[in-house]
Amino acid sequence: MPDTITLTLDEAHTLSIEVLTACGMTPDHAQAVTRVIIAGQRDECHSHGLYRLIDCARSLRDGKAVPDAVPVIEEVSPALVRVDAQFGLSPLAFELGSKVLLSKVKTTGIAALVINHCFHFSALWPEVESLAQEGVAALAMNPTFSTVAPAGGTRPLFGTNPFAFAWPRPGPHPYVFDFATSVIARGDIELHKRLGKKIPTDWAVDENGQPTDDPDAALRGAMLTFGGYKGSALSTMIELLAGPLLGDLTSAESRTFDEGVGAAPCHGELIVAFNPSLFTQGDAKQDALRAETLFESIKAQGGRLPSERRFEARARSLVQGVSIPVKIYDEIVALK
Amino acid sequence: MPDTITLTLDEAHTLSIEVLTACGMTPDHAQAVTRVIIAGQRDECHSHGLYRLIDCARSLRDGKAVPDAVPVIEEVSPALVRVDAQFGLSPLAFELGSKVLLSKVKTTGIAALVINHCFHFSALWPEVESLAQEGVAALAMNPTFSTVAPAGGTRPLFGTNPFAFAWPRPGPHPYVFDFATSVIARGDIELHKRLGKKIPTDWAVDENGQPTDDPDAALRGAMLTFGGYKGSALSTMIELLAGPLLGDLTSAESRTFDEGVGAAPCHGELIVAFNPSLFTQGDAKQDALRAETLFESIKAQGGRLPSERRFEARARSLVQGVSIPVKIYDEIVALK
Repeated sequence: MPDTITLTLDEAHTLSIEVLTACGMTPDHAQAVTRVIIAGQRDECHSHGLYRLIDCARSLRDGKAVPDAVPVIEEVSPALVRVDAQFGLSPLAFELGSKVLLSKVKTTGIAALVINHCFHFSALWPEVESLAQEGVAALAMNPTFSTVAPAGGTRPLFGTNPFAFAWPRPGPHPYVFDFATSVIARGDIELHKRLGKKIPTDWAVDENGQPTDDPDAALRGAMLTFGGYKGSALSTMIELLAGPLLGDLTSAESRTFDEGVGAAPCHGELIVAFNPSLFTQGDAKQDALRAETLFESIKAQGGRLPSERRFEARARSLVQGVSIPVKIYDEIVALK
Repeated sequence: MPDTITLTLDEAHTLSIEVLTACGMTPDHAQAVTRVIIAGQRDECHSHGLYRLIDCARSLRDGKAVPDAVPVIEEVSPALVRVDAQFGLSPLAFELGSKVLLSKVKTTGIAALVINHCFHFSALWPEVESLAQEGVAALAMNPTFSTVAPAGGTRPLFGTNPFAFAWPRPGPHPYVFDFATSVIARGDIELHKRLGKKIPTDWAVDENGQPTDDPDAALRGAMLTFGGYKGSALSTMIELLAGPLLGDLTSAESRTFDEGVGAAPCHGELIVAFNPSLFTQGDAKQDALRAETLFESIKAQGGRLPSERRFEARARSLVQGVSIPVKIYDEIVALK
């Protein structure tokens, strides 16, 4: 019996819609969430792919996330738009808000999209990548659940706090990165646990602050930030700019809000867009070529651009479909 | 004979003004540059303190930086202001531009200050700290000279590319960090060279891509980014957002522009300000208290806030004055 099952992207899409609909989600939400799930699976970001349907169903069935929430858009200033997700999942709020963000940044050069009260449910790269496809550079960040110790500490305080950036390029693919400020994404530890695998000892500490290779012990303990005190500072910034700045929850507050249910984390998100045609002093096309020279110089000395593996996976998936472990597939099908 | 000499802050201020004036700098530039030099020395950031007068004099005397440049301010949009430093040193351009930035961010919530064509001459923390003192959160970043290899590479391409952030707090001191995206600031290697000290072997590689403890070999080779591929991605973002986005130079282009003179790097800078009273959904004062809870939680488990050592040094320097090596003091006095 094979360990994995292969689905076409259409089959994966249908499976996702069926599960989300069975959980009571309205069609607009189901479509928006499915778009990011399929993007994750297609690009072989497994912890953000179909696997996430299991978390999603839990968030909806345990009554934390509102499956038919109607996001409310508020234009705060010429450069600032807020979407109150009304405790629904984040992808629909992002899709609605990003249209307003793009309209604002055309005239202001810099603009921000705030998402409040969302159950966050997406990697950040599909968001910043979609903005870069429209010709703007974009940053995105959010807190999550407190699972990461600050530098010098031993207990969970920060979330894995992702930080993502995209830069528009000629051709089909922007420059995109999206990294957790923890050494690793929490989903990777959860996936190891689910598959019964050990984790590297530099990912986390156990409840006593000691290194561990046991994913269960790591999930009960605290993950570590990447890059020591610098990663810890970056994670603090994300807590502040995507938490208290927006009047929304820090990772520690989000964990309290969850009340032990294990739903997707509820918090805010900050997205900042930059319009090169207003930032330039002269010719934005010429400036774009200078960015291309930078990328070529990275590759010429053996470096890879951070999004290349995803784009290669995407090309494969479009032809061959996507594969997931049978164990996880069965668990997802049972949610329908 | 003592190795160091102690100066009062007033004496240090006078010394800096005398050196800068002797180099042909106008009084407004000399005052602005001296403010950041004294701030660096006072906070015991030695590589950004009086030591930098030596670089500064070189930049001015070798004819690269314009000592009497008059910065030109352009209000690009309601959320975007540009200061063309006209190839002068950066501190005066920042002081003039930050006033406009603060005015814009009051009504737009988010706003950006672009500085173009400046010889960059400051740590970033005095800049973001001054904005946080006015009640806004702020980010700042800039390229420098290509001295750092990208992840997977072996040759200089990125600068040390600092990234700084400040968050307003009750009391005298904001939350502030300012870190190089290289493992260490280039000034620290230069200071080791000047004092005849070896460097740790994880700071840099030599011209053959091998680890080295020799500061000379490191300066001829390439430094490494902090945090592996994540630090390298962050450094790439800084090249893009504070280089091509602004129509200004990347670190590699800045090195070419220098023509081997060894002046301060000429490039642009990006500063982004966030106004909490517009980002909040409700009560910004209440949100600020939640940020304080985060800081308390970091300290309660043994973590330090990144700016604490500087603020402790500041308190000491205000009472005891500042100390620098006699060797460096003599070199500075000779510039008068």
